[in-house]
Amino acid sequence: MEYIEGGVTAAKGFKASSAAAGIKYQGRTDMAMIYSDVPCVAAGTFTTNIVKAAPVKWDRQVVYESEHAQAVICNSGIANACTGVQGMAYCEATAAKAAEVLGVQKDAVLVASTGVIGMQLKMDRIEAGIDMLAPALDGSIEAGHLAAKAIMTTDTVPKEVAVTFEIGGKKVTMGGMCKGSGMIHPNMCTMLGFITTDANISKALLQEALSEDIKDTYNMVSVDGDTSTNDTVLLLANSQAGNPLIDTKNEDYKAFCEALHAVNACLCRKIAGDGEGASALFEVKIIGAETKEQAVTLSKSVVTSSLVKTAICGHDANWGRILCAMGYSGAQFDPEKVDLFFESASGKIQIMKDGVAADYSEEEATKILSEPEVTAIADIKMGDQEATAWGCDLTYDYIKINADYRS
Amino acid sequence: MEYIEGGVTAAKGFKASSAAAGIKYQGRTDMAMIYSDVPCVAAGTFTTNIVKAAPVKWDRQVVYESEHAQAVICNSGIANACTGVQGMAYCEATAAKAAEVLGVQKDAVLVASTGVIGMQLKMDRIEAGIDMLAPALDGSIEAGHLAAKAIMTTDTVPKEVAVTFEIGGKKVTMGGMCKGSGMIHPNMCTMLGFITTDANISKALLQEALSEDIKDTYNMVSVDGDTSTNDTVLLLANSQAGNPLIDTKNEDYKAFCEALHAVNACLCRKIAGDGEGASALFEVKIIGAETKEQAVTLSKSVVTSSLVKTAICGHDANWGRILCAMGYSGAQFDPEKVDLFFESASGKIQIMKDGVAADYSEEEATKILSEPEVTAIADIKMGDQEATAWGCDLTYDYIKINADYRS
Repeated sequence: MEYIEGGVTAAKGFKASSAAAGIKYQGRTDMAMIYSDVPCVAAGTFTTNIVKAAPVKWDRQVVYESEHAQAVICNSGIANACTGVQGMAYCEATAAKAAEVLGVQKDAVLVASTGVIGMQLKMDRIEAGIDMLAPALDGSIEAGHLAAKAIMTTDTVPKEVAVTFEIGGKKVTMGGMCKGSGMIHPNMCTMLGFITTDANISKALLQEALSEDIKDTYNMVSVDGDTSTNDTVLLLANSQAGNPLIDTKNEDYKAFCEALHAVNACLCRKIAGDGEGASALFEVKIIGAETKEQAVTLSKSVVTSSLVKTAICGHDANWGRILCAMGYSGAQFDPEKVDLFFESASGKIQIMKDGVAADYSEEEATKILSEPEVTAIADIKMGDQEATAWGCDLTYDYIKINADYRS
Repeated sequence: MEYIEGGVTAAKGFKASSAAAGIKYQGRTDMAMIYSDVPCVAAGTFTTNIVKAAPVKWDRQVVYESEHAQAVICNSGIANACTGVQGMAYCEATAAKAAEVLGVQKDAVLVASTGVIGMQLKMDRIEAGIDMLAPALDGSIEAGHLAAKAIMTTDTVPKEVAVTFEIGGKKVTMGGMCKGSGMIHPNMCTMLGFITTDANISKALLQEALSEDIKDTYNMVSVDGDTSTNDTVLLLANSQAGNPLIDTKNEDYKAFCEALHAVNACLCRKIAGDGEGASALFEVKIIGAETKEQAVTLSKSVVTSSLVKTAICGHDANWGRILCAMGYSGAQFDPEKVDLFFESASGKIQIMKDGVAADYSEEEATKILSEPEVTAIADIKMGDQEATAWGCDLTYDYIKINADYRS
């Protein structure tokens, strides 16, 4: 497997476009389209929040009931959540308009929205946006990149990744884009993520691969502990790589899953590192766990703690907060057996041994914690299971961004 | 029942003192003592964090195994948590020293600490502090007030309350003090709270009254979602009011519970309103719930959401975030039936009706949200149960306080 340049247009037969439709933002693009030359099998995972945005409800229908999907329409600025019957009607109208312009089935059009909850979309602008997007579709890397920019809200950078790998002697490509960067604490699904691949794979295995992988990727990311109403990851496969169909869990499926994990994990690190106001990517690794579930619970509790996150912001090796957050997580462990380390590009240091402070240099710890990517590793010495969660520090800018997000 | 001036020294026979012992802070008091002229029955509730500070372990022994308690020694600056065997030895040494100086049993001395996790106490300073505290004991309101100041960490104001009420024709007094204001998300217990009363009540009912009341008070407070390692509420009753002994759940017990709730609820509002960096007390009331548990889950989820808290900081009626936080709480409800209101000293406004935006004035909403005490009320229209949770807004100052708390 090899990382290559690009995003959603990296795989064969996928095109993208973007447009400034004036949905809510001024002076920037705010709509994106992804299109496959041929029908795709589609998989999706969606928010577990019981308040589900209209596009989530729409996409669940498409993913679970339609045989194929062929296009995705995404807007930023307005989330189309808590918008009642009208919000659902807008999703259908969006799909209908795209279907007409692109010449595909309405139930093959996926829809995604991100932005303010509770505002209604202006449908005339969405429709005008689709009229701009369709003729602008393009298979270039640049077109994918511009689409990744159009779906940003408070993100500071677009987030893309692409890989190639081989299946049955054929080169297969997979690329994706996603957006963060607040209300990020996915549960059984995520923020907005769009992955495209030219792999030839059955719809059932495509869904299974995605559903399994999000447990170790999107579900392990938290920016602020808030699980959004719009979280959606869509995975489209159009079979243009020409590899033998993957319809059993063979070596080919394993290669596919490995590539999918690489793409998702990379996007997740980008989401965490670009969390609202973040100055550092904060990775929490629990090792020596008895069960995977225990490691997941502990690592997510630490990565979500406001007090731990502010300490990371201050480059402060305040390890007591880490042990504290492990302690209230609900997972069982023996606090008096825990070893704790901090690691970054500047080195690795042991902070705690058997539950009490190790003899370490605060100066060295501060140096290690001052890097843009910082990892805390806790060894609970109970077994060989582990888990990694991704988050970010909690900074002044998070408050600045969110205290008046709507204006 | 009547609110009166005072705190832990309001009830008959209780004295307090404070001292600058140089535990960690400079130029301020950092140790407090509470003492009853006669032995008390004691009740306590403690952190459910599995990382329990040494003083929590010590106090559990005293509350659960000793017949009586007579003194409390509290220090701020260092939490004596994650301090291993040595930390436990320090608790015992503290109690032994106080027992010697006060002429009471060692197992009648309660110990509490708050501050940085992981540092060891300097025992010579603790002992010197006790030598200063004992002769300074005083029954005045001022002495209680100074004790409340000595236990503060990042609190900006001391927190006290006192009430009088009548039982069997006798005037009974109850007073308390507590400290916040970060790492505040008590679970089955709380931060540090000390309540004294001259009521004559059995140890069993004292504990039951406390254990029941914290469910509606301390357990409904959250400043930052972090459940501390040191949370402790102690309730001492010394029977000096001369009321007939309360040892059954009669009308007298009811009056006692009512007073206890008034004291605890008042302290909780003070903790929330003085949460780290807070500019506003934020109260979340869920009404129309089917079960109490559902109302509790929903209100705590909203009051804990970073995105809701930053919106309150910005006086922004961003109600979508409230519905979102209800949606991921784990409690079931129909989003399309929810009505939402904001209320403060400036008035009351309906923001959402049946799950979508009501026709309201943003200007008026902002005015209501600009008060120092703000309430959000969500009616989920399923029954007649309700719950109230207390928190605060999330501000720049929270980051400032916590990014470098240890230095």
